[in-house]
Amino acid sequence: MTKTLAVNAGSSSLKWQLYEMPEEKVVAKGLIERIGLKDSIFTTKFDGEKYEQILDIVNHTQAVKMVLEDMQRLNIIKEFSEITGIGHRVVAGGELFKESTRLTPEVVKQIEELSPYAPLHNPAEADCMHAFEEVLPDAVGVAVFDTAFHTTMPEKAYRYPVPNKYYDELKVRKYGAHGTSHMFVSQEAAKLLGKPVEETKIITCHIGNGASITAVKGGKSVDTSMGFTPLGGIMMGTRSGELDPSVLPFIIANDPELKDAQDAIDMLNKKSGLAGISEISSDMRDIRDGRKAGNPKAILAFDMYCDRIQKYIGQYLAVLNGADAIVFTAGIGENAEYMREGVLDGLDWFGIKLDKEANNTYGTTEISAADSRVKVFVIPTDEELVIARDVELLK
Amino acid sequence: MTKTLAVNAGSSSLKWQLYEMPEEKVVAKGLIERIGLKDSIFTTKFDGEKYEQILDIVNHTQAVKMVLEDMQRLNIIKEFSEITGIGHRVVAGGELFKESTRLTPEVVKQIEELSPYAPLHNPAEADCMHAFEEVLPDAVGVAVFDTAFHTTMPEKAYRYPVPNKYYDELKVRKYGAHGTSHMFVSQEAAKLLGKPVEETKIITCHIGNGASITAVKGGKSVDTSMGFTPLGGIMMGTRSGELDPSVLPFIIANDPELKDAQDAIDMLNKKSGLAGISEISSDMRDIRDGRKAGNPKAILAFDMYCDRIQKYIGQYLAVLNGADAIVFTAGIGENAEYMREGVLDGLDWFGIKLDKEANNTYGTTEISAADSRVKVFVIPTDEELVIARDVELLK
Repeated sequence: MTKTLAVNAGSSSLKWQLYEMPEEKVVAKGLIERIGLKDSIFTTKFDGEKYEQILDIVNHTQAVKMVLEDMQRLNIIKEFSEITGIGHRVVAGGELFKESTRLTPEVVKQIEELSPYAPLHNPAEADCMHAFEEVLPDAVGVAVFDTAFHTTMPEKAYRYPVPNKYYDELKVRKYGAHGTSHMFVSQEAAKLLGKPVEETKIITCHIGNGASITAVKGGKSVDTSMGFTPLGGIMMGTRSGELDPSVLPFIIANDPELKDAQDAIDMLNKKSGLAGISEISSDMRDIRDGRKAGNPKAILAFDMYCDRIQKYIGQYLAVLNGADAIVFTAGIGENAEYMREGVLDGLDWFGIKLDKEANNTYGTTEISAADSRVKVFVIPTDEELVIARDVELLK
Repeated sequence: MTKTLAVNAGSSSLKWQLYEMPEEKVVAKGLIERIGLKDSIFTTKFDGEKYEQILDIVNHTQAVKMVLEDMQRLNIIKEFSEITGIGHRVVAGGELFKESTRLTPEVVKQIEELSPYAPLHNPAEADCMHAFEEVLPDAVGVAVFDTAFHTTMPEKAYRYPVPNKYYDELKVRKYGAHGTSHMFVSQEAAKLLGKPVEETKIITCHIGNGASITAVKGGKSVDTSMGFTPLGGIMMGTRSGELDPSVLPFIIANDPELKDAQDAIDMLNKKSGLAGISEISSDMRDIRDGRKAGNPKAILAFDMYCDRIQKYIGQYLAVLNGADAIVFTAGIGENAEYMREGVLDGLDWFGIKLDKEANNTYGTTEISAADSRVKVFVIPTDEELVIARDVELLK
């Protein structure tokens, strides 16, 4: 029995989960928020207790060291050496990383070099890799890429209709995201279908604050809604999703608050989506409440949100020439039954029928009616488990 | 019997067609290209003959006067007064014009004020209106808007998930295009279906050098692929269609040839699409030949092109909850049977089946198999006729 740590570093956060492997038992987990800002929040959950501290943590290197010291202090581990593997979620793997990869100095360097494709994430992730290497030199490090699952897309799907030089020289293309989640739930759905994943066609809807939809054929991603960056695809909590590009110069020219294209992109990433339309919140639960209360902006935000998801399901039904199953997962996908109803309502021409009663339950469930031509599942995602498993495989 | 002129003014062109109404008989037609440049090309077709002159035409006002003088010189008309109505295609009607509208000084002023939404087209169109008003003061002028047919879209379809102020203050939204064409072919398709248009659900694919796809429910547009400008939607001859907006700042930062967002938009309008990927041509016939010759860039351009159209058909099948018919029209839609096959192949899960033999004919044809769940038609579009009819209605 060994312990494996799954690490997910964001631009100013560090999420971790400690497993006993191969039992896949979660021993403890934690989250550090506001890294690099004043009053960082340091949370650990272990043995039914939640421990929280507010203190200043200047960077990811310091955060990593504090996590390990805190594990010892709380008796989660006795010695650092109990942790024999560390899996790191990496946002941008580019075209280079088609699968999870054991860390070497060369691999870490390549991950750093991919920073232009995820400027807020890859540098933080590389910092964590360096920090763990320093404190736990004997543990095996593994990089698990958000993009790896999507490297099977055919060229017609990942290329943009722009001059070739932008792909040849700058690698501008669709990379996708949430790959571990789309992979995990498509494999779980195949089990529920009672078929080898190689024989299935599945549309996976990872709907959280960030959200993407993937067409999975025979267990491989053949198209996905997120694009060059996570701004592509469907409407999200604070992101616009894809747009007529002409919107950008027009709003830059007319909004004195935006000085250039990068400013406009920041606005499209942080102030758009549900938040921009509802003017209430980026949180679907607030939209739900606003909608119930008859707030017209919340109603519009909700209707637009469901419309965009429904249209992606339509396009991926075309891409796959039909599907065995549609899966909803992630925060909103797993919990917002009203969103699932809003998306699936009015697709009976396709033979897609919702069981409204089943739709009101939680956890892994089949929510389609018995005679639905396409099965619809809710399957809780578990990206950390995929990371821990990949570490085991590569150790 | 009276004569009605249908006028279509582009940024540097003027297309016209003279009808005898109400017989809907085309008497003559013509095209002036390169207005404002050296060596403008002035072409007239009448009575089986084609007349071409090369001369310098400085602006649309001069072009209008020359068209009328040429009509007299060639005996197409004896007196200017025979022309009792003039219909003008207008690209941007904004939210103001929901239907074809008789011209008054106020209406022309409003069309000029909408120029920010079609900076190359609306000013040229207004120039033509002024010129005809001067030379033919007694003729009735009518504006026929490319956007009017799409003003029936529900808000969830036409709004972008960006902060509300961009809609409230700047009217940034989806306007769509090719409205007269989508309206015309959806009405013709209803006749072929033998149903009142009010009872039909039709997906219309106007695929020319510019291209858009519309979901038409009960004769009304409920969603369309073109957006705030004609750059939105599917891949076109030289246009990219919609994109992850993040592509823009990335290529601006990395391509020294692009100095700002407007530069990048010009490149997306003029050097992208089929032309950008194939590096051969923006013309589908050249792509077809390149593909036959095994050119991998032509093959990729073709596959991407069909993929984007197929995905829009999928989304609009979802929006409409099924369709009675899919219609192909415009230059490529009417003539490129290989494109139609590329798009419709692999949709048998939907019950969509192509009759490959019927697909190889021209003109108005049903190209779906007898047992296809959705009928597929090729219907030549006739935007000029719609314009002439609207003039008759409003005279």
